[in-house]
Amino acid sequence: MNSNNIYLDYAAATPVDKRVLTAMLPYFSEKFYNPSAAYLPAKHLRGEYETQKGLLANAIGAKAPDLIITGGATESINLAFTVLKQNTGHCLISSIEHAAVRESARSYSAGNFDEVKVSTTGLVDLVDLRQKIKEDTILISIALVNNELGTIQPLSEISRLLQEVRESRLKEGNLTPLYLHSDASQAMSLLDLSVARLGVDLLTINAAKVYGPKGIGALYVARGVKLSPVTFGGGQEMGLRSGTENVPALIGFATAAKLAKEHLASSRRQYQDFTRQFKQIIEQESRVAPLWLGDPKHQLVNFVPVCFKGLDAERLIFKLEDLGVYLSTGAACAASKGQKSHVLSAIGLSDQEIAGSLRVTFGQGNQLEDVKKAAHLIAEVVNQEAKRLKLV
Amino acid sequence: MNSNNIYLDYAAATPVDKRVLTAMLPYFSEKFYNPSAAYLPAKHLRGEYETQKGLLANAIGAKAPDLIITGGATESINLAFTVLKQNTGHCLISSIEHAAVRESARSYSAGNFDEVKVSTTGLVDLVDLRQKIKEDTILISIALVNNELGTIQPLSEISRLLQEVRESRLKEGNLTPLYLHSDASQAMSLLDLSVARLGVDLLTINAAKVYGPKGIGALYVARGVKLSPVTFGGGQEMGLRSGTENVPALIGFATAAKLAKEHLASSRRQYQDFTRQFKQIIEQESRVAPLWLGDPKHQLVNFVPVCFKGLDAERLIFKLEDLGVYLSTGAACAASKGQKSHVLSAIGLSDQEIAGSLRVTFGQGNQLEDVKKAAHLIAEVVNQEAKRLKLV
Repeated sequence: MNSNNIYLDYAAATPVDKRVLTAMLPYFSEKFYNPSAAYLPAKHLRGEYETQKGLLANAIGAKAPDLIITGGATESINLAFTVLKQNTGHCLISSIEHAAVRESARSYSAGNFDEVKVSTTGLVDLVDLRQKIKEDTILISIALVNNELGTIQPLSEISRLLQEVRESRLKEGNLTPLYLHSDASQAMSLLDLSVARLGVDLLTINAAKVYGPKGIGALYVARGVKLSPVTFGGGQEMGLRSGTENVPALIGFATAAKLAKEHLASSRRQYQDFTRQFKQIIEQESRVAPLWLGDPKHQLVNFVPVCFKGLDAERLIFKLEDLGVYLSTGAACAASKGQKSHVLSAIGLSDQEIAGSLRVTFGQGNQLEDVKKAAHLIAEVVNQEAKRLKLV
Repeated sequence: MNSNNIYLDYAAATPVDKRVLTAMLPYFSEKFYNPSAAYLPAKHLRGEYETQKGLLANAIGAKAPDLIITGGATESINLAFTVLKQNTGHCLISSIEHAAVRESARSYSAGNFDEVKVSTTGLVDLVDLRQKIKEDTILISIALVNNELGTIQPLSEISRLLQEVRESRLKEGNLTPLYLHSDASQAMSLLDLSVARLGVDLLTINAAKVYGPKGIGALYVARGVKLSPVTFGGGQEMGLRSGTENVPALIGFATAAKLAKEHLASSRRQYQDFTRQFKQIIEQESRVAPLWLGDPKHQLVNFVPVCFKGLDAERLIFKLEDLGVYLSTGAACAASKGQKSHVLSAIGLSDQEIAGSLRVTFGQGNQLEDVKKAAHLIAEVVNQEAKRLKLV
C-alpha cells in the first residue's frame, strides 16, 4: 500500500501483521513437513501444530479438540450449518447476516429457514426471534458483529433465551436439539471472545480479518454437537475437514489471535479516539448532515458507517479514491456484484439512503493524522457533490 | 530442515521454493486488499489474481475460467465428485487411489462405486475398467501418478476408451454423461500436463506437492461439466467455492507451476541419475535383495518405492531417522493411523511384503551425494536388521 494513501476498509481485509508473517516464515521452508509423517521432525511439527491450535482455542476460551481448522470463515460457516444434515429441521438467521450465512441457511435447510428482524440500529429483535423459533428449529445463526454496521449482538441474552426454549422442549418431550452459531469474523481484533460467556455452541473465527493470513479459519464446536464433513479424505480435523494441515497458516492465525488479545484495550482506546475525532470533523464540515448508522452503544469501535442522504456513495468513493482514500459501501463480495445492501435495507433505510451510505472501518495501519485528513477529505467531497446536485 | 539430514519424502510434502515465497511476500502486506473491493488497488489486485490464475491454467493447457481455485487437493477432489450430485449414478475408481478419492467416491455416490483392478506394477487394468463401466456410470477417477508407487497411468488411453463408451451410449439413446477425473497432485513437478492430451474432463492439481504453499489447489473443469458448490457464500470461483480469494497462495501456486515447467527436463534428468545410482548402491550393498516396486517404464522419476521382504519397514524408518534419513512407508495420512497400505495390497504384495516396504521420493533439496549417502545408510540398516533377524 502506498504510504500516502489512507485505507479505511479494514472490515474487508486486513494486512498480515509483520510479527505474524515472521512467525509463519520458518514453516514455509525448514518446517515444511507433512505433520502426519512418522519421522521425528514431522512429529515435532505435529506437536507445534497442536500447541498453536490450543493457543488459538484459548483465545476464545476453548480447548484444541473443540476447534476444527478450516480454509476460512465461509467454510467454517458451511461446516456449522451441516448440523442440518445431522438433524433435518428449521433454522433461523438474522436479516443482516453475511452472504456465507444467508446462502448456507438457504442451502443446508433446503429453504426451511426464516429471518429475524433487526432494529433500526441493527440489533436483533428478541421478541421476533422468540416468536420465530418453531418446534423443529435446530440452528440459530447470528453474527456477533455485523460486517456493515459493526453492531454487536446481545449473544448471551440470545443464548439464555435459547436455554429457556430447550428447557420447555424437554418438558414437552420434544428432543429436537437447538444450537446457537455465531459468525465472529469481524469481532476478534477488538472483542475478548469467550465461548462460555457468549453461550454459543458453534463459533466461526477467521484469520484474515485479524491481521492473520488469508485461507484459514476455525469453527468452535461444543462437545456433543454433531456435524457432517465438508470434505472427505485423509480424516484430518476429526474427519470433518480432510486435507493436509496448513501449518504456516495456523501458526499465523494463532499468532494473530494472541496479538489481538494482548492489544485489545489499547486498540479499543485508539479507535474510540479515531471515531470521535472523525465524526466531529465530518459534523463540523459536512454541509449534508451525516446520519451515523449502527448502534452507538453496541458498536465495534473501529466501525463508522455513515449515510449522506441524497448523495451517491459510489461517486463519493470514486472521488475519494482519486484523493487516496479507500473505503467501501459495504460487503466487498456483494458490492462487486452491484447488489443493494440487504443490511441497510433491513434496518429500514430507504433506497435513497442506502445509495448514499459509506462504510468506514479503521485499522492498525491508520494514524490519527490519517483519520483526520480522511474526515476533512470526505467532508470536502460530500460538499462538492452536494453543491453539484444543488442540495446546498 | 537441518542440513545434515536427508529428506526423502517429497511425495508427502515439499518445502516452499524460495522464489515462490519471494513472489508471495508482497501479497501478505502491501497488496492485501479484498480483490472484490471497488477501489483501484483492489481492482488491480483482482487483475493480478486473474492473470496469475490464467498462467496457472496455461501450465496445464487450460484457460483461467476453466479453473476453480480451492483450499487444496482434497477439496478439489471433493468438488470433482459433486458431479454425482448433479447426476445420480455409479462411479469407478482404481483400487490404488488416495483416501481423498476413495472417501469421496464412497460418500458422493452413496456407496454406488466400484474399484478397478491394477497390475502388479500398479497400472490400471483397462479390460477390467471397460467391464466395470455400467449403464449409469457417470464418473471415473484415476490418479495420474500413484502417490505410493509413482506409477503413471495411461490416461489418454483411458480417455479414448471412455470416448467409445460415450459414442455407444449415444447410439443407444443413453444420455448419461461420462466424465474422467484425475488427481494429478503428484505429477506437476515432473510431467508436462495438458488437459487436452490427457483427455480429462476434471483435473486436480495441488501447490503443496510442487514447492508451492499449502492450503491451495485447483480443479480444472471442462466446459459443460456441471458441479455443485463445496461452500456457499459470496459466490467466488463461479459460485462453486465461496470465500475471499487467497491471493498470496494463488500467486505462490502459479509461480511454483511456472518454475516446475521451466525445469521439467533438467529435473527429470537429475532424478533419473539419482534413481539409477541409488538403486545401484542398494543392489550392491544390501544383503536382502530389494524388490523395486511400481512400473519401471511408467514411473515418475523421483519415486523409488522398494520392498525388503522379511524386514519391518517401521523399524528401518526408525533406525534411519536416527541417522538423519527421513522417509516413509506410504501416504502420511494413512501411515499416521497405522493402516496397512491398500495400494501395496492391491498390487498383490503379501502382508509380509507390505510390512517390509519403504517409499523413497527425491526432491529439490537432495544432492547426488545425499542420495548416495542415504543409499549406503539404507543398505547398512537393512543388513543390520537382516542379521538381527538371522535372515542372512
